[in-house]
Amino acid sequence: MIAWKNLDTLAAYEKLAALKDHVNLVEAMAGENGAVRVKNYSVPMAGGLSYNFAAKAVDDQVLEALAALAEEAQLTEKFAALYNGEVINTGEKRRVLHQLTRGQLGEAVVADGADKRAFYLGEQKKAAAFAEKVHTGEIRNAAGEKFTTVVQIGIGGSDLGPRAMYLALENWARQNNTLKLEARFISNVDPDDAASVLKTVDLAHALFVLVSKSGTTLETLTNESFVKDALKNAGLDPAKHMVAVTSETSPLAKSSDYLAAFFMDDFIGGRYSSTSCVGGVVLSLAFGPEVFARFLNGAHEADLTAKERDIRKNPAMLDALIGLYERNVQGWPATAVLPYSQALSRFPAHLQQLDMESNGKHVNRFGEPVRYPTGPVIFGEPGTNGQHSFYQLLHQGTDIVPLQFVGFRRNQAGMDVDIQGSTSQQKLCANVAAQIMAFACGKQDADPNKSFDGGRPSSIIIGEQLTPEALGALLAHFENKVMFQGFLWNLNSFDQEGVQLGKVLAKRVLAHETDGALRAYSDLLDI
Amino acid sequence: MIAWKNLDTLAAYEKLAALKDHVNLVEAMAGENGAVRVKNYSVPMAGGLSYNFAAKAVDDQVLEALAALAEEAQLTEKFAALYNGEVINTGEKRRVLHQLTRGQLGEAVVADGADKRAFYLGEQKKAAAFAEKVHTGEIRNAAGEKFTTVVQIGIGGSDLGPRAMYLALENWARQNNTLKLEARFISNVDPDDAASVLKTVDLAHALFVLVSKSGTTLETLTNESFVKDALKNAGLDPAKHMVAVTSETSPLAKSSDYLAAFFMDDFIGGRYSSTSCVGGVVLSLAFGPEVFARFLNGAHEADLTAKERDIRKNPAMLDALIGLYERNVQGWPATAVLPYSQALSRFPAHLQQLDMESNGKHVNRFGEPVRYPTGPVIFGEPGTNGQHSFYQLLHQGTDIVPLQFVGFRRNQAGMDVDIQGSTSQQKLCANVAAQIMAFACGKQDADPNKSFDGGRPSSIIIGEQLTPEALGALLAHFENKVMFQGFLWNLNSFDQEGVQLGKVLAKRVLAHETDGALRAYSDLLDI
Repeated sequence: MIAWKNLDTLAAYEKLAALKDHVNLVEAMAGENGAVRVKNYSVPMAGGLSYNFAAKAVDDQVLEALAALAEEAQLTEKFAALYNGEVINTGEKRRVLHQLTRGQLGEAVVADGADKRAFYLGEQKKAAAFAEKVHTGEIRNAAGEKFTTVVQIGIGGSDLGPRAMYLALENWARQNNTLKLEARFISNVDPDDAASVLKTVDLAHALFVLVSKSGTTLETLTNESFVKDALKNAGLDPAKHMVAVTSETSPLAKSSDYLAAFFMDDFIGGRYSSTSCVGGVVLSLAFGPEVFARFLNGAHEADLTAKERDIRKNPAMLDALIGLYERNVQGWPATAVLPYSQALSRFPAHLQQLDMESNGKHVNRFGEPVRYPTGPVIFGEPGTNGQHSFYQLLHQGTDIVPLQFVGFRRNQAGMDVDIQGSTSQQKLCANVAAQIMAFACGKQDADPNKSFDGGRPSSIIIGEQLTPEALGALLAHFENKVMFQGFLWNLNSFDQEGVQLGKVLAKRVLAHETDGALRAYSDLLDI
Repeated sequence: MIAWKNLDTLAAYEKLAALKDHVNLVEAMAGENGAVRVKNYSVPMAGGLSYNFAAKAVDDQVLEALAALAEEAQLTEKFAALYNGEVINTGEKRRVLHQLTRGQLGEAVVADGADKRAFYLGEQKKAAAFAEKVHTGEIRNAAGEKFTTVVQIGIGGSDLGPRAMYLALENWARQNNTLKLEARFISNVDPDDAASVLKTVDLAHALFVLVSKSGTTLETLTNESFVKDALKNAGLDPAKHMVAVTSETSPLAKSSDYLAAFFMDDFIGGRYSSTSCVGGVVLSLAFGPEVFARFLNGAHEADLTAKERDIRKNPAMLDALIGLYERNVQGWPATAVLPYSQALSRFPAHLQQLDMESNGKHVNRFGEPVRYPTGPVIFGEPGTNGQHSFYQLLHQGTDIVPLQFVGFRRNQAGMDVDIQGSTSQQKLCANVAAQIMAFACGKQDADPNKSFDGGRPSSIIIGEQLTPEALGALLAHFENKVMFQGFLWNLNSFDQEGVQLGKVLAKRVLAHETDGALRAYSDLLDI
């Protein structure tokens, strides 16, 4: 029997809270003891990755308290309820089934008479077959020529995740001769976004993927119209250049405006939709269905490790628990995500949505206000760029910001250069290793301006190379981490009521049905 | 006589601190009183912009306390000391002269026998003349053809600012027929970055701008070497494709490896260098020197308003003071920057460096630890994209995050589309107006999950269009805001000792001179 309880009602949390400032990280990471921690505080992940938390301010006693919390909060049982199809998204009264897009984790989930895994798999196969026809040239443009570019039109989860995934694998695919179509993305309702992207696109050879679950997202419909105008002005038939990704009940589903339609459903939230058709169509077109399948396999493997009850075998759960300790016990309000891989340049933006939209809530799943901090602010840029930017504050600012590094032993493009006795890739890796230690141990200096207190905790996810499997595992790791944190905070991590009010007011502005300050702002902005 | 004092020793700060939670923003912004605030709480800025702070949790009493603080902290006098050439960067014993790259603000500043304004102006003219020769074709590639692309190689301030400025004006320049060369940027030591950029560049027609003040930045020299290899492999002479931006004493300054060299000096910090040759060469090449001059004029005009003693006439000082009130009195640890303009997509990344690297410090300018929070975490993405992402947390999360909006009445590209009775641009503007009010006033709902507490403060900078003048004004506004906050916190905002330790340790890793945990991490990363 699952009990949904607030964090501050759990006995295990009380014990954990007593361990505030329990570990002196500077001392823990010094000398050979530090090396032992690096060896021991490592958990294998899916996709050939590993999660190393040696530089987090935890020790065996804290880990024990975290394990007890995981048990009392029934994290494993709650995850099982989710993948077995219970209505976990209580606010919107929906199941939460994104994991089923990559594999079966438990019992068959049947809704509206259909097996959901079979449904997602069917759409995936449809997308794969369509992509193959585009690649072989069975589907061509009006002039009988092959398509060369795919352009995704979507916003939020229909943009950030798929875009981050595309950028993560673009170089890898080029290097492995599997870049079938280059991809571009249009998202912002600012018309300068679409105009700017279209300048770089050869319209006659471009295939557009319109993504909107409801079929009513105003930004996306506006951009669709913008693109259709551009196609018509170029003498092209939009219906021959566009496919839709939507729900079966949406107005887009059966429109003759599209070459094809691919379906998702209400059980997959936007920010969890990269492994559904929302990511599947564009990624299969760009890289081929085999690469997309490898990406799904990595994610599924990560989902399987998320079922482990032992936190030392479950990196997503462990990461979630350590993050909770940092947020609620240590009281740190933000987390930086710092991938030492240019290919992951937009991964932090995806995580920003995933995490902040899921757990940036102040009421629990029953609508009652909680009395503890929930989701932190998430931000980040790739290293080494960040080192030459905001790392100053991370090292010597007045607040402590926990850090999440990601690093790979090998780069993707296979090109490199040896300068001053080391390759670029070695410099990149040397920098991330150096940063972890600089943050953890600091350094005393006679000049206080050059002194570093240390005690700034980080973890690192390490892999051999950013492959499709590794990327899938990375994506699912964070999805599952966020899910476990939502369970711990007793939140519904799968709705987003906080975005509604702005939409309502914007409509009112456009209808000129405003007064007071809203009217005054509208006047200032000439609406 | 200027007194450099800690914030918590100022009598005016004590009075300000007594005004915690003084304004009920929900009530203040409701009804017609809200409209009056929108009208009154607005300050004209340079470049045709205005700074509207109606939705900040301040009133006349708080503003009076802020004005008293500005007086007691001698903000105007400290700025004068800076632009008159005093050694404000005490740690590195340097003057701080970036404002002189755009105009003279006070007395002539003479250093090493040279008038610094004349020096900066001279380099600017050199860059302008060089750019014109490239545009007219007087300077060509070996095959006698014109250059079509400029590629900046730099990191940190040599990348983030110039890149953000280029992206901000690219569409505007295209629309105004003044896009002379397209620009690209290589920054990360990850070899996948350079590889990825070079894939999109026609090397034979590309001009590279190598930017390193010291001439020893490892990431930049590594990328230079990477690019030179690529040029040689394409049968091209690197010396015919590359210029340097550096200091006169750097090893790059007089090298025959470059077509030309342009100079900056130690009085311009990296993150303040967009208006120096660091931004000037690439932007003059991309848009023409006239556009760059307009950009400088906007910045200079903003610097002049920063001299105003009256905070109601000095938007940078007012913005700084309100930010301090939010950070130190209200205790809010982060700030989001949310431009409703796709052209400003990388402006938040630039501000992240500008702000966090300048004021992310825990010792004052005398090296003594301060007992109050200093620089906040800065993050942001363009609206409306952010609305579909992390705004959930901003609206309904447990922490309050102050917001900085930017919006323009007209877009840049001049293309638009009318859907459901409004243009994209109107939708964009309606959204930002709606968000300000949703954050400020919230909305009560019987369903607590759909309830918004409001009381989440924001300001907005509004302009007619993002022109070169407006961009210059925007850039200088934030530079000056950060400077004033540094004065208030009694910090040296112009050094960055926090980035040094990582560099030292990275070198040790590459030399294999490590032990303990650092050695263990290096092994894990196969260095």
